Amino acid sequence: MTTIHEFRNVIEKYKVVFFDAFGVLKSYNGLIPGIAETFAYMEATGKEYFIVTNDASRSPKQLAETYHNMGLLAIDHERIISSGMLAKEYLDLKVNDGIVAYLGTENSAHYIERSGLQALPVREIGPHNIDQVNALVLLDDEGFDWFTDINRTVNILRQRTIPAIIANTDNIYPVSGSNQVSIAIGGIATMIENIVGKRFIRFGKPDSQMFMFTYDLIRERRPISKNEIIMVGDTLHTDILGGNKFGLDTVLVLSGNTLAHDVESRIISTGIVPTYICPDASI
Amino acid sequence: MTTIHEFRNVIEKYKVVFFDAFGVLKSYNGLIPGIAETFAYMEATGKEYFIVTNDASRSPKQLAETYHNMGLLAIDHERIISSGMLAKEYLDLKVNDGIVAYLGTENSAHYIERSGLQALPVREIGPHNIDQVNALVLLDDEGFDWFTDINRTVNILRQRTIPAIIANTDNIYPVSGSNQVSIAIGGIATMIENIVGKRFIRFGKPDSQMFMFTYDLIRERRPISKNEIIMVGDTLHTDILGGNKFGLDTVLVLSGNTLAHDVESRIISTGIVPTYICPDASI
Amino acid sequence: MTTIHEFRNVIEKYKVVFFDAFGVLKSYNGLIPGIAETFAYMEATGKEYFIVTNDASRSPKQLAETYHNMGLLAIDHERIISSGMLAKEYLDLKVNDGIVAYLGTENSAHYIERSGLQALPVREIGPHNIDQVNALVLLDDEGFDWFTDINRTVNILRQRTIPAIIANTDNIYPVSGSNQVSIAIGGIATMIENIVGKRFIRFGKPDSQMFMFTYDLIRERRPISKNEIIMVGDTLHTDILGGNKFGLDTVLVLSGNTLAHDVESRIISTGIVPTYICPDASI
Amino acid sequence: MTTIHEFRNVIEKYKVVFFDAFGVLKSYNGLIPGIAETFAYMEATGKEYFIVTNDASRSPKQLAETYHNMGLLAIDHERIISSGMLAKEYLDLKVNDGIVAYLGTENSAHYIERSGLQALPVREIGPHNIDQVNALVLLDDEGFDWFTDINRTVNILRQRTIPAIIANTDNIYPVSGSNQVSIAIGGIATMIENIVGKRFIRFGKPDSQMFMFTYDLIRERRPISKNEIIMVGDTLHTDILGGNKFGLDTVLVLSGNTLAHDVESRIISTGIVPTYICPDASI
Repeated sequence: MTTIHEFRNVIEKYKVVFFDAFGVLKSYNGLIPGIAETFAYMEATGKEYFIVTNDASRSPKQLAETYHNMGLLAIDHERIISSGMLAKEYLDLKVNDGIVAYLGTENSAHYIERSGLQALPVREIGPHNIDQVNALVLLDDEGFDWFTDINRTVNILRQRTIPAIIANTDNIYPVSGSNQVSIAIGGIATMIENIVGKRFIRFGKPDSQMFMFTYDLIRERRPISKNEIIMVGDTLHTDILGGNKFGLDTVLVLSGNTLAHDVESRIISTGIVPTYICPDASI
Repeated sequence: MTTIHEFRNVIEKYKVVFFDAFGVLKSYNGLIPGIAETFAYMEATGKEYFIVTNDASRSPKQLAETYHNMGLLAIDHERIISSGMLAKEYLDLKVNDGIVAYLGTENSAHYIERSGLQALPVREIGPHNIDQVNALVLLDDEGFDWFTDINRTVNILRQRTIPAIIANTDNIYPVSGSNQVSIAIGGIATMIENIVGKRFIRFGKPDSQMFMFTYDLIRERRPISKNEIIMVGDTLHTDILGGNKFGLDTVLVLSGNTLAHDVESRIISTGIVPTYICPDASI
Repeated sequence: MTTIHEFRNVIEKYKVVFFDAFGVLKSYNGLIPGIAETFAYMEATGKEYFIVTNDASRSPKQLAETYHNMGLLAIDHERIISSGMLAKEYLDLKVNDGIVAYLGTENSAHYIERSGLQALPVREIGPHNIDQVNALVLLDDEGFDWFTDINRTVNILRQRTIPAIIANTDNIYPVSGSNQVSIAIGGIATMIENIVGKRFIRFGKPDSQMFMFTYDLIRERRPISKNEIIMVGDTLHTDILGGNKFGLDTVLVLSGNTLAHDVESRIISTGIVPTYICPDASI
Repeated sequence: MTTIHEFRNVIEKYKVVFFDAFGVLKSYNGLIPGIAETFAYMEATGKEYFIVTNDASRSPKQLAETYHNMGLLAIDHERIISSGMLAKEYLDLKVNDGIVAYLGTENSAHYIERSGLQALPVREIGPHNIDQVNALVLLDDEGFDWFTDINRTVNILRQRTIPAIIANTDNIYPVSGSNQVSIAIGGIATMIENIVGKRFIRFGKPDSQMFMFTYDLIRERRPISKNEIIMVGDTLHTDILGGNKFGLDTVLVLSGNTLAHDVESRIISTGIVPTYICPDASI
């Protein structure tokens, strides 16, 4: 029923390719086989790329290094757009001073520090400084003690009327080949929302601001139209829904969250339809 | 506790003012008193305005006429940005042919017809043409029989794997001075989503694309920065949340959905904080 | 994988059989073929039965007549337990006087009238009598104008702090052989809950009170143990979940909402596991 | 507006009093002042009591000891009905063999062990024994590492199609006098439900089975009618909603989760109305 396309045939119609990272370029095993050739082909044919990722666990430079370490030297950190960058932009425009409390690794705090604000992990917030906390940002599911710090986060939001930002809307991420998953910070955020009765401000796909931010980066240098761009992703409700909504054509690859054996039933049950389906992003 | 500002003092710091429509410029009683003076002041001082509205029940021209009929001749239809325009843009980019089925008034179908596609009300969809339906758009809560056509909509979405778009995310709107409300099409959409297990693509505030669309209109003509713009609205979870998230300063006015006696408790309970609060948008 | 049992082999191990109605005993086409033989067998072998149904659209006597009219004379109205009876019991215990407003057919008002209270359809509630409304009951999706009366219901609940009861928790029900459905009053109730921010008191499967009510009817006459009873239903999240939770063994039949081709994936995805699966309830 | 009653005047009309525990009889500070007198009065006047609690963190005997240690010797463990007892009853009836995995303290495993099944904490489930896990029970928010064991729980439910039971539906509980709270296991359960897409079987108030279980204990010894019983609780959506739905009269006390300054607005916003309101359960 579902037509499976060759990735090369799909991307040759477009000038710019947006890639999701996990499940598309890499997995817990390293690079997806054949990805280096894809980047060589794109360079040879003058196609532009951006990596549009909900991973706010480290800075674009650090993210680029992880590709370099796996042997994919073609990745330029200036072409990595992370949801953490949207959180930073929000803080730049809307928070003038005070402390920004966060859940995440020390590396993830990069995005807050770049905005010139004081970043403190939630575990360092107490009666002596809670009144100076002017925003809360959830960046990553690691780097803190879940029991103590999730409970602390709930109490900060009960006590302070401040914006709460979540830079990764994913609920889970894969952690091994045997179909094991781990809860992502987006899943924690939803629990906290239900408990305190306040909504987080969500950045990251499928939110349009991720796509707009990347689209604007291109437009600053040259004219571009949305139908010259294609979004490549492995997840229907973030990559494909977000790309579709922003008006882009989309490719679903079957090398990550969505598997060949149930791709058809998932498309039917969600109503989220990619323009193309490919086995993976190799060529 | 809560400081109430004068609207004139607030807007004089900004170059561009985005207004929500219902509860800010007009109510079920007609124009909010003093609004004509606000528009005269803005024209005299060279401030630019846009009306950013979730009302997709009619075209910008028809919406402008309703202001003219109430005596506010200053309103230019080119400055009205309706969520229906985002739905149209989506259809332009993502739907090539076939029928677009809709719930709403005949006037609301304007947005579909402008995209060059065939608009048919849900009541005209049956076994003979359901296979040609390539998108479904929910535009307004009037213009159809709720029992027959909401049930028909559910069955279309069970039978067809197509994008479903909702151009008005509001749940309710006020219908009289005695605190009576009516369910908006956004409330109907949520019920249909729960029943068929598929998510609608939502345009309209608080979604960022409404703000981006308007922001781009300005940028096409001249440079502008987000901190030169202020969003004026009467509803925390659409106008203020959306404006805040997009990085704009925001004014909450107390002439519509949010009332003076509970503004403070609503801000605390939702965590959505406007930059300013004013009694209304008169000066 | 999934073992399919013969219904006769299953029920011969139990003394009492609880049947769901729609999809088990009857469909929009009439009686499920072979059901008359099942009731003859049960009478011959001295097994007791109850029909435990979320259908509050009419009284047990009227419900029994619909079986008699289809030729199943064995059905005794005293063995039909409808969720409306739970609503009646609630009104008996908790509402002393005043008006009970309702959405549903005139027949469904039977349950309110039996409690000795004044039943008025929502359309007859206005400024002159709204202060006497002491409870609201949603009984059926027919018998009222959806647009006017659902909006009226929302406004009654915004104005009056009263218990709101929903006697049918189903979201949809089938209306034809071509897989068409209709929204049930349970789906309407969920929409109203989201809009007014208040929870309905829910009776009907999977709620335990339905099972307890029936169980108590038996215990009034003789001792019985839960493992002598089996619940037969066609819907995982009402019949099977409710029966399991109450501690009964359960049979899922494939003659209604759950179809043979996806029974296995539905059980896995919901985690609701019946004790047995049978093609239907015929023997 | 709201009438505040004296507790003695309220309970003298009833023969049996159901008490919630936390916020009614005790707080993080110890016994609520005056509670010993209440139990003395009840004994003198021949009123029967039951403590109906969502606390499944330890056995009724251990729960009774905590009262004895605080000086309230009147509490008999046979009169403590915990939601863990409902979980045990479910396991007795529906799970025949294998392992029951649990989240909670070692004390909370009491309820599983009483059913004769093998209780293992989630941290002891691995590839070698996951196939023998036939049920999962969430009992308490302590006794495990949140990060490792909540993630393990998610993976167990993705791999095994088994009933998942939650014995405490509360989202939070108070931990100090300065309005600090801690997330209860019910909040964790909702997060897991959203992530794995499966529903837990919920015991504990407001579920009717808690009330039915207690009601049946009385009926085994003597006849009783629902209007001879009153439920005393500090939480609208568990104690009062559950009591109301079961058909009991209810008292809301203001010594726990619901505070005097917002009791009226909470009743209006939730629509959950107690029969009486008292400052606390002292007399």
